[in-house]
Amino acid sequence: MESWDPYTRGCPSRDLLDQIGSKWAVLMLGELGKHGACRFTQLRQRLAGVSEKMLTQTLRTLERDGLVRRTVYAEVPARVEYELTSLGQTLRAPLRALTEWSVRHIEEVLEARDEYDVRTEGAG
Amino acid sequence: MESWDPYTRGCPSRDLLDQIGSKWAVLMLGELGKHGACRFTQLRQRLAGVSEKMLTQTLRTLERDGLVRRTVYAEVPARVEYELTSLGQTLRAPLRALTEWSVRHIEEVLEARDEYDVRTEGAG
Repeated sequence: MESWDPYTRGCPSRDLLDQIGSKWAVLMLGELGKHGACRFTQLRQRLAGVSEKMLTQTLRTLERDGLVRRTVYAEVPARVEYELTSLGQTLRAPLRALTEWSVRHIEEVLEARDEYDVRTEGAG
Repeated sequence: MESWDPYTRGCPSRDLLDQIGSKWAVLMLGELGKHGACRFTQLRQRLAGVSEKMLTQTLRTLERDGLVRRTVYAEVPARVEYELTSLGQTLRAPLRALTEWSVRHIEEVLEARDEYDVRTEGAG
């Protein structure tokens, strides 16, 4: 049994952090968690501004990581749906906490940025 | 009072998600949360493999966002320390949950990746 530590160089748990913490992954997993199975076009609408390429890439990464299941229904035209796996479900709470934090504290962050910019302009 | 929603295009809470969810921000805030004030070289050692440039950039972003405080002590040579602000402290619990998730589930993710690669090679 190997021990995993994201503070160790080369540990895959470190890059996993980047993947699950990227804004599109957070928003996509959040949306699938709320609404259950979704089609590509529904996700694209809900994540306003995401490009088709980014949506495709992120869904493929999440599927490869075992967080999202892609199901193709043999209909004409073929229906494709995405939903959380049981592993993906375990990420809902941590990602919701992160999303809520960013909404709750964005104003403080924006104020801090303004103050920082004024301070460093003065110094520069 | 504006209402913030990371699902809305252009809402700054969306990009804030990306920043606080990046692996270096997560690990750096985690480390500062555990150990209190740290010097640059301590952080660099603890985050094995981080480049000096990335460490500098990430610290500056975190400082600008009001999450980290940089203090310069008038000593020779000058001592510079970084520590969490009270706003940064509020991020500790959500980021710890994310880090723990990645450690707890990395093996399942690695297995899922292997299965995915075998499956898609077969199909390709």
